[in-house]
Amino acid sequence: MKLNLDNADAYLMVSESEHNADMYYATGFLAYDSFAYLNSKSEKLLVSDMELGRAQKESRIQNVLPTSRFGIMEKIRKLKDGEAAYCETILELLRSENIKRVAVPYNFPVQLADCIRNDGFEINPIKSPFRQMREIKKEYEIADVEKAQRAEERALAEGIRAIKNAVIKKGSLWQENGPLRAEDVRAIMEISLLRGGCEAPDIIIACGKGSSDPHWQGEGELMEGEPIVIDMVSRSKKERYYTDMTRTVMCGTPSSELEEMYSAVHDSQVSAIKKIKAGVTGSEIHNIVCDMLEERGYETGRGKSGTLTEGFIHSTGHGVGLDIHEGPNIGENGKELRAGCVVTVEPGLYYKNIGGVRLEDIVVVTESGCKNLTMFEKNLVLK
Amino acid sequence: MKLNLDNADAYLMVSESEHNADMYYATGFLAYDSFAYLNSKSEKLLVSDMELGRAQKESRIQNVLPTSRFGIMEKIRKLKDGEAAYCETILELLRSENIKRVAVPYNFPVQLADCIRNDGFEINPIKSPFRQMREIKKEYEIADVEKAQRAEERALAEGIRAIKNAVIKKGSLWQENGPLRAEDVRAIMEISLLRGGCEAPDIIIACGKGSSDPHWQGEGELMEGEPIVIDMVSRSKKERYYTDMTRTVMCGTPSSELEEMYSAVHDSQVSAIKKIKAGVTGSEIHNIVCDMLEERGYETGRGKSGTLTEGFIHSTGHGVGLDIHEGPNIGENGKELRAGCVVTVEPGLYYKNIGGVRLEDIVVVTESGCKNLTMFEKNLVLK
Repeated sequence: MKLNLDNADAYLMVSESEHNADMYYATGFLAYDSFAYLNSKSEKLLVSDMELGRAQKESRIQNVLPTSRFGIMEKIRKLKDGEAAYCETILELLRSENIKRVAVPYNFPVQLADCIRNDGFEINPIKSPFRQMREIKKEYEIADVEKAQRAEERALAEGIRAIKNAVIKKGSLWQENGPLRAEDVRAIMEISLLRGGCEAPDIIIACGKGSSDPHWQGEGELMEGEPIVIDMVSRSKKERYYTDMTRTVMCGTPSSELEEMYSAVHDSQVSAIKKIKAGVTGSEIHNIVCDMLEERGYETGRGKSGTLTEGFIHSTGHGVGLDIHEGPNIGENGKELRAGCVVTVEPGLYYKNIGGVRLEDIVVVTESGCKNLTMFEKNLVLK
Repeated sequence: MKLNLDNADAYLMVSESEHNADMYYATGFLAYDSFAYLNSKSEKLLVSDMELGRAQKESRIQNVLPTSRFGIMEKIRKLKDGEAAYCETILELLRSENIKRVAVPYNFPVQLADCIRNDGFEINPIKSPFRQMREIKKEYEIADVEKAQRAEERALAEGIRAIKNAVIKKGSLWQENGPLRAEDVRAIMEISLLRGGCEAPDIIIACGKGSSDPHWQGEGELMEGEPIVIDMVSRSKKERYYTDMTRTVMCGTPSSELEEMYSAVHDSQVSAIKKIKAGVTGSEIHNIVCDMLEERGYETGRGKSGTLTEGFIHSTGHGVGLDIHEGPNIGENGKELRAGCVVTVEPGLYYKNIGGVRLEDIVVVTESGCKNLTMFEKNLVLK
């Protein structure tokens, strides 16, 4: 991959790639332990000797060097300090490539940066060029998100079936052997996801007033007449792409307040999705949602600075890919959307004495509009 | 938590806590999005307004501030740059606490460090004090590792039962409907783990010559007469502590070479575990393993600098806790073990024309020896 680097001879990343999506995107090599990626005239990987064979086989980078090439073991023995030895190794790598000015991502480790600078090199933190590339998905990436989305919908269908099949006893949902808890539904959905080659570490199944906190994971008995917010962030284990979907459901008869909240969220989501296309800004889409919610009498965080805890208290959406949250942002400062962006559209309303309502779809931005990858039905009341 | 900071007024971390174990350890607050932890006269968290309620409820830090306290939205509107606005927010936090000299972990983001330094503050990267604390486990932490270990052993038992129940057809293992593949056994084990409240994203089930790469995950049909290395790293989802265990098994009759490798690995592991106690160094334990393997004619990486690809090519073990790999190291440069350390003991031998053998237990270091948390039997040949 060729990078446009203005004031630098090279771009350097040092990180593991299990959690650092840029590192995985750039190299295609999945490793729990830290390794180095250098992009200058060509691309190079520097990995521990134990990872050499696997990196040569699995990474898309041709040129893979082992750290023994720069005598890491001797350096560790001499310096008695793993970090200092590793820094010396990186310095030798840079010297061997005649590199002086090194661009690094914002999150490059400061200790290593200081050590490299102390040796006379320039270190310039820049906005990650990979993060920008990652915003525009290639076809295979969209297919990977879709694959996860299909598995996620099967899992949600299984979870909702369990909720539908529950019997109501004194206001609580019951299964055969006892109360149906958020944990039970979560387990059903997680096993379904596993069967579909996916995983979802933190499925939100938030029932009742607690769902007014959009990040509460939910626990305990599920209740009749209360909203159940189900928010899933699943990832296909092989391809490593995420997808993201939320539905709000309930058993029994909703209060008129809850019904109105649901309609407002639903309608604002439909309007927003209708307007998404390449060239529109994330901020315009966010405004469509805020306008409609405010028209219907709900408070939104738009233009506010205080601690808003009720109403529409988050942004409308975010990019999804190798990270759960990535660019572009569909919020107050959201920039222009481009064809190939994969974003969520997830308006929500939260009131402490009622609970939460959130609906979230994931769409691909196109030149003429957008393609909704989410096929799951939206109905508040389960029948 | 009180930190001993020599040349600094405060310790600052800015990170998410889903992957950054120090951040979770220090705060007890689990969040996908970045937040700030400041330890000076007291401990403070700085979180987005949306996370305020949850942080107040779930974190062990009393003093939780929302970013709106420092006008983050106004700063974003003014600067049109999220990172610049966030840096300004951190600067205000530091000023409000009269902090001048800030210690940060090695992996603190360089861009934020530069920005803070540009404003006249000192930023001193130091070895994480939390990482050092984390090496000595409290009783509840050991209980959490043990809980994951019990679930891991149940899952391994289920996986091994499937292998035992397989029928051999032309050298391959078969189940009812077709070949028994690594993927099938992995799925059985993953579902068992989920039922036990655990997860294991990357279970190694490596059969045949490919297992000579200790990090190969394994795929495809399982074969008679070939070693099957099963390496599990499971985590209890609620408590977030990992455990780690490896067994090598096979169906059929092993070659004498493989049998000898297994005995050597087994015996070196037994000897190493016998010698572990507080005060012994990781390097001494590693030497016990290397001595025995070398005596039996196997090559080890000890004292070598080149690219060793066969023999005993990794270190003997590592600490386990909120991270899969943490201190202390049981390898060539391993320092003194202390009571309460939880470490793996995992000698292995790898030959390209035979495959791999690895056995891994997890033990708690005590004053008088160690307690092996692993109860799973060790038998090469499944009967």
